[in-house]
Amino acid sequence: MSQTNKTTATTPRNSKDITHWDIETDIAIIGFGGAGASAAIESADAGSKVSIFELASASGGSTALSSAEIYMGGNGGTPVQQACGYHDDTENMVNYLKACFGNQADEAKIRHYCENSIGHYNWLTGLGVPFKLSELKERAIMALTDDCLLFTGNEKAYPFTEHASPVPRGHNLQVEGDNGGPLLMKILTEAVNSRAVDVHYDSRALTLIVNDAGDVDGIVVRIDQQEKNVRARKGVILCAGGFCMNEDMVKKYAPTFDCGLIPIGNPGDTGSGILMGMGAGAGTSNMHECFVSLPYYPPASLTYGILVNDKAQRFINEDCYHGRVGYNALIAQRNSSRIYFITDVEGYGDYEKMSYLGATVAGTGDSIAELEQELTLPEGSLQYTVDTYNKHAETGDDPYFHKHEAWLRPIKPPYVALDCTLGRGPFYPFFTLGGLDTLPSGEVLTPEGNIIKGLYAAGRTTAGIPRTAAGYASGMSVGDVTYFGRMAGKTASL
Amino acid sequence: MSQTNKTTATTPRNSKDITHWDIETDIAIIGFGGAGASAAIESADAGSKVSIFELASASGGSTALSSAEIYMGGNGGTPVQQACGYHDDTENMVNYLKACFGNQADEAKIRHYCENSIGHYNWLTGLGVPFKLSELKERAIMALTDDCLLFTGNEKAYPFTEHASPVPRGHNLQVEGDNGGPLLMKILTEAVNSRAVDVHYDSRALTLIVNDAGDVDGIVVRIDQQEKNVRARKGVILCAGGFCMNEDMVKKYAPTFDCGLIPIGNPGDTGSGILMGMGAGAGTSNMHECFVSLPYYPPASLTYGILVNDKAQRFINEDCYHGRVGYNALIAQRNSSRIYFITDVEGYGDYEKMSYLGATVAGTGDSIAELEQELTLPEGSLQYTVDTYNKHAETGDDPYFHKHEAWLRPIKPPYVALDCTLGRGPFYPFFTLGGLDTLPSGEVLTPEGNIIKGLYAAGRTTAGIPRTAAGYASGMSVGDVTYFGRMAGKTASL
Repeated sequence: MSQTNKTTATTPRNSKDITHWDIETDIAIIGFGGAGASAAIESADAGSKVSIFELASASGGSTALSSAEIYMGGNGGTPVQQACGYHDDTENMVNYLKACFGNQADEAKIRHYCENSIGHYNWLTGLGVPFKLSELKERAIMALTDDCLLFTGNEKAYPFTEHASPVPRGHNLQVEGDNGGPLLMKILTEAVNSRAVDVHYDSRALTLIVNDAGDVDGIVVRIDQQEKNVRARKGVILCAGGFCMNEDMVKKYAPTFDCGLIPIGNPGDTGSGILMGMGAGAGTSNMHECFVSLPYYPPASLTYGILVNDKAQRFINEDCYHGRVGYNALIAQRNSSRIYFITDVEGYGDYEKMSYLGATVAGTGDSIAELEQELTLPEGSLQYTVDTYNKHAETGDDPYFHKHEAWLRPIKPPYVALDCTLGRGPFYPFFTLGGLDTLPSGEVLTPEGNIIKGLYAAGRTTAGIPRTAAGYASGMSVGDVTYFGRMAGKTASL
Repeated sequence: MSQTNKTTATTPRNSKDITHWDIETDIAIIGFGGAGASAAIESADAGSKVSIFELASASGGSTALSSAEIYMGGNGGTPVQQACGYHDDTENMVNYLKACFGNQADEAKIRHYCENSIGHYNWLTGLGVPFKLSELKERAIMALTDDCLLFTGNEKAYPFTEHASPVPRGHNLQVEGDNGGPLLMKILTEAVNSRAVDVHYDSRALTLIVNDAGDVDGIVVRIDQQEKNVRARKGVILCAGGFCMNEDMVKKYAPTFDCGLIPIGNPGDTGSGILMGMGAGAGTSNMHECFVSLPYYPPASLTYGILVNDKAQRFINEDCYHGRVGYNALIAQRNSSRIYFITDVEGYGDYEKMSYLGATVAGTGDSIAELEQELTLPEGSLQYTVDTYNKHAETGDDPYFHKHEAWLRPIKPPYVALDCTLGRGPFYPFFTLGGLDTLPSGEVLTPEGNIIKGLYAAGRTTAGIPRTAAGYASGMSVGDVTYFGRMAGKTASL
């Protein structure tokens, strides 16, 4: 906090040093992705004068890059869930999310989110977001049809089945191909534009403006090479994304994931919102956690195979979500130089045509002994693992990892092994799951839990519903950023 | 940062609101453990007026509770290493520490520490710290004799042997029993008392005093129920310990370790120093990491046994350091309901007499099949694991986990299984390894790496040399806190 000539994120400007406000508004929103758009709509609808400052030349953020299978349910079920024959109890949804994130779960946010999930569905459809009353039944990472409802997480996998009844909660927009995110942001952007919201593109937020009492009065934004002091009478809402594009921050805060993973997000995910919040005294949570994935399906038929380490030990039930598999594969590599996916030719199926994984074939064999040798696994190790797995698969029971019997099928010759080792071909994407401490209502908190007056945040600038890759489900992040973006917009307008 | 009536750690007081300085000094040191004592000695020796504020009624901190096997070496070897026939190259020590902590390592601190390790040895002996020129050769958690040198980490274990030549670097003080920590603090306390240092016991530091430029001018301390404003002309040095006694902080920052582990430290390890630093704009690192241990030796003979999960899979080379085993056992329990230590009666040896572990016998058997059944492990699983292990042990090679051949011996009937599952008896101690960002010279940094003028820190209030349980060695923490305590004391005096 020593004085420097350059304006930096963690060195807030003092209100009393401001001689001129270049822009005056009620609510300044930093970032025009899913969170910022949702916050702007609610703020404007509550009668506030709203200004959005977006780094890029267009709206979108990381939401526009996502598949946007919005995670919703509870309250008996969304109209889509009900139309597809699913009843979804709120407590069941709460229990599922608590099981997903264990002692890292933010129970207050989970409850807020689940109890109001139908309201959120209605808010989205009210803006024109289209959901078809149909289900995609296959195991998929994303819906490429315009069908709506799908299982997007670990709902049907052990140990989550011990905690909650499986219900699909991913809601894909009614659009062909992987185009849910762009369509969602198109609709939200139109909703913003139809309201009295000033949008400033190509505008970089630099640091917060804080008074002697520690309250946030505004924000410094650079527009056209000039620093502008923006006064935000009701508050600043930071919706500036996560930090997966900031290598230094990933190394510092989330070193587990500083290992050659591919960041997925937009170029603005540099953590600037988090740093600005810290500079104003905000606390952070979950900074060490990221989403990571080993997207080994489609084809879903690969799920009949097994994942092993360099001792040929299995380490996870292969029917769980690709994020859970990715996380466990990453951790396994601390003590293993290789990760292999072992399948038979039938399971391999359309892998080469359909896969996002990019893993290359490490070996093939007519016998496991042959494959084991080709992979230079310890003698007998893979033979034992496959023999045991096959024996259990025959009986429809996996006492080792509790893979569901629907995915248990003996692996038969000829065999194929894919090299799923990080750095040897496969796609391991990641993005960050830690950020500013906030209340469900959007206020930013100090490390001791006090509210910082005038400061709000939402989206991946905060620690939200999704806390770990091991518990993640597709649609949780877009669900979280739009819902809690709305809450922040509402609260700031009060 | 909103105004509150109560003085809290993360809400610094503004210098301009101070109407009266109750105490004026050059350097205010918070905490009289190993770090604070070392900082005080160096500050006083550099001619500064020094005041220590200690929460407890006596010096000691967590250093006095430790075994204090100070981790030193490099530069050809300490006098003890040389007398015991070991040559220790500085680069070898640097390489070892880098291998210990991977991308979490602070290379600047590691290099500073290793290059000046002999100087630190001489500083300690100059104060009267006694080291006998002798070695304790057995595998032990701590020396109970007055011998000095011992292997205290993973130096001889895979994969560290791939990165550095094994050299023992733990330096136990010349004292019988587990009394190194008390003796070290007695000597350091005498050194402080023989210098012009004001020591205030029963004094609780509340929050820093910061001016408008963000520089630290002093600290608020409560003494005799009264808040005292302490002016520190040259700076405040936070040496207030870690946060293992603060359940909320552990849950928030280090949730992996919020699972029923036993905190080891002193009651003052509440994170107050870290929170005060944060309040003044400091960044933090490594907050999610803790030391954790499964102290399964002594008796060293247990090392001939194997650790397995509830699939009877081994998961670590059992000849590594107990912290590395503890960490891996903890992570394994995310996907395993049980952890067992399997040994034969010969390996079990004096377990009941010598062990710190407290694990109870979960089963015994004349055959592995019998033991497997008693432990309700999947049929054939333990038989395969033990058969394979024994076959490899016969050849002196462990292709699975690379346990050193010195610890490979077939496990023979009758067998014993100890239940090493967390929550079912065994002692899993922990303490925190994250804290304020500092330079090797002791200055505290903002999240963006700028120096906060007037603020220094050392010890477990900072992120120091030891970063993970998986790479920890006994003596690293006491080595780190005393060495970097000195550096902070020197720098603050400049």
